[in-house]
Amino acid sequence: MDTTNASALRAGLSPGDILGLFRDVSDGLTKTEVTRHTGLSRTTVNQRLDGLLAAGLLIPASEDARTKGRPAGRFVFNRERGVLLVADIGATALRAALCDLGGEVLAEREADSDVTSGPAAVLTVVERFFTELLQGNGLAPEQVLGIGLDVPGPVDHETGRVVSPPIMTGWDRYDIPGWFAPRYDCPVLVDKDVNAMAYGEQRLRYPGVDHLLMVKIGTGVGTGLIAGGRVHRGADGAAGDVGHIQVTVEDVAEPPLCRCGNTGCVEAYAGGWALVRDLREAGHPVATVNEAVQLVRSGDLTAVRLARRAARILGGAIADTVNLFNPRVIAIGGQLAHTDEQLFAGIREVVYRRSLPLATRNLQIVRSALDPHAGILGLSHLLVDGIYTPERVHAFIERAGAGR
Amino acid sequence: MDTTNASALRAGLSPGDILGLFRDVSDGLTKTEVTRHTGLSRTTVNQRLDGLLAAGLLIPASEDARTKGRPAGRFVFNRERGVLLVADIGATALRAALCDLGGEVLAEREADSDVTSGPAAVLTVVERFFTELLQGNGLAPEQVLGIGLDVPGPVDHETGRVVSPPIMTGWDRYDIPGWFAPRYDCPVLVDKDVNAMAYGEQRLRYPGVDHLLMVKIGTGVGTGLIAGGRVHRGADGAAGDVGHIQVTVEDVAEPPLCRCGNTGCVEAYAGGWALVRDLREAGHPVATVNEAVQLVRSGDLTAVRLARRAARILGGAIADTVNLFNPRVIAIGGQLAHTDEQLFAGIREVVYRRSLPLATRNLQIVRSALDPHAGILGLSHLLVDGIYTPERVHAFIERAGAGR
Repeated sequence: MDTTNASALRAGLSPGDILGLFRDVSDGLTKTEVTRHTGLSRTTVNQRLDGLLAAGLLIPASEDARTKGRPAGRFVFNRERGVLLVADIGATALRAALCDLGGEVLAEREADSDVTSGPAAVLTVVERFFTELLQGNGLAPEQVLGIGLDVPGPVDHETGRVVSPPIMTGWDRYDIPGWFAPRYDCPVLVDKDVNAMAYGEQRLRYPGVDHLLMVKIGTGVGTGLIAGGRVHRGADGAAGDVGHIQVTVEDVAEPPLCRCGNTGCVEAYAGGWALVRDLREAGHPVATVNEAVQLVRSGDLTAVRLARRAARILGGAIADTVNLFNPRVIAIGGQLAHTDEQLFAGIREVVYRRSLPLATRNLQIVRSALDPHAGILGLSHLLVDGIYTPERVHAFIERAGAGR
Repeated sequence: MDTTNASALRAGLSPGDILGLFRDVSDGLTKTEVTRHTGLSRTTVNQRLDGLLAAGLLIPASEDARTKGRPAGRFVFNRERGVLLVADIGATALRAALCDLGGEVLAEREADSDVTSGPAAVLTVVERFFTELLQGNGLAPEQVLGIGLDVPGPVDHETGRVVSPPIMTGWDRYDIPGWFAPRYDCPVLVDKDVNAMAYGEQRLRYPGVDHLLMVKIGTGVGTGLIAGGRVHRGADGAAGDVGHIQVTVEDVAEPPLCRCGNTGCVEAYAGGWALVRDLREAGHPVATVNEAVQLVRSGDLTAVRLARRAARILGGAIADTVNLFNPRVIAIGGQLAHTDEQLFAGIREVVYRRSLPLATRNLQIVRSALDPHAGILGLSHLLVDGIYTPERVHAFIERAGAGR
């Protein structure tokens, strides 16, 4: 059997791969550093960097606002070659942002917004925010290289259409990319909120981790899976639906009805809407998930008891997910992640007890560090991945060469 | 935004990618067909095929035993450039095979074998079978390009060591590749049985399906996941452990103890060992899982009742997996898949009732068509993938060019 041939392996490093190196470092790299990181010959590195510079994908560090004090001979990823517009559409609020190609938020807007008011009402607000964000920064629609939106429901990744969403009344099969086509000539990516959040956490906080689980405990309960460094959406965009796993709870005679039509689902016990329902039944006049979270934080005994029960039920469902999926990191976000440390303690206790030792010995269960920006940041990185595929980078360089 | 540049996309097709095309067709391809399939220029196709022919990776169809009646100008993947030795090590039996590089079984041996007798006893049998398979076909160890083994427990994919296996007494951290090193100078791949089975099903039966779940219901219960066309092993090789999800069963007061030390696991109700236990408790003198399966097939009322309960419990666990993972195909194998159609009917009923409609509308639940050869066939394809990576193909061609 032949041993691996190093020069052949290096031949696999395209200009797009080299550009990827620069995306991952904030301070840029010199030619010597690229040679050392890649094992490519000096000649090849010169060729590849010349192409990336000619196409404007890289720039000298001295020309970049963040790194302009740097000595000559250092190059950085050109974050300002264009901008991105992204929007995180939640059940009861939305957030829109203008980002650079490094995925950094340059400006943002947020507003309360009821997703059940339907696509026209919600997307009108998103489009207005996008226009304001561009105008406020002296930018034109032509400078937008990509638009990304995430929504609280399953999405057909190929077409960007929401499919059979349990809570997004009026959105089924709606053509979201089509809404933006008259005004923007760029790709429009639509994804499920937890997928974008999972990718944001992985790219920015755990770049060395291949397998990550994002759990969002908001009005409902959902998970986003990163498998082998890629978002796992499943065959129909329905993956990660931990909220509708059925559970049996000992002190409950009649399993509660879920929003999906079944009974006894995880989120019918442990989602934000269920917490609001149970607090109301106990005589607390709470109207929103945030009010329920405040009541838990205030130490109200009924609220704390319900939050602890939610933690045990969530822990059981997450333990099952750990047995099936074996992630290295579980990041927990959403409004209920702000109740208090008891939620985490309850989840951790059940997961470490019920999952197999092999799957938990190196497992980290953490609060999402990016929440509530995880979705926005994940979307911007998903967009840049799509804009700068190896094939597209190759084409940008060929075009720049042809124009000289 | 730039539209996708077709010539740039084509530039991404390496000789290894071209070789992959040939692996997927049994009748071979002409240069014209390769040009049509890939969109590459005639000149590039000529170059790439010349390289693959010079390195002996492709051969003219007229020189291949299967296709020798074919007209000139047609080329086939050279399945006879070397051979593979693979072994499927089960809890109570093992199967060893000699395969060509097309993954086809040329000869095989099987024997009863108790995995708890430990690695030295089991691997001695495997090595003897390997020697007999080579000698019986007039082959020398130097012609072996790869060795693959699958085992009924979690494996650290990097080192090929079994890790904390619940049922493989004496195998923990054992260096399986090291056993073969004195005699064979080739890579040794070790994987969990259900992973190899899942890959075999996907490659040979569902090549167009990216997301597949393999469920093995044998002595224990395990699942192998194909995510995005690749085996999902998880962060510690522990993924797919559906057998140790905890379930609550209404008519059972005291959840049964599982082999893993917990109580109430799926396999403590629905695995082959649990079926044997319950039949014995009911007064049936069954000793093995196969005897229990025969009793179900004979229509014994207690055995049928227990099999139906197992189907409901497995159906619940598979429904959870569908909600989390959203596969397109579920293939079910292992000894209990041979009970009868009732098992499948029971599983299907629960899955279609409990999983979300979006995840089941295109879902197929089928009996494994390759079982009991799914593991052997999956291993041989995993081995060829590793032997013929794009980088290695590049190296083979460079070496062939240098030798001319």
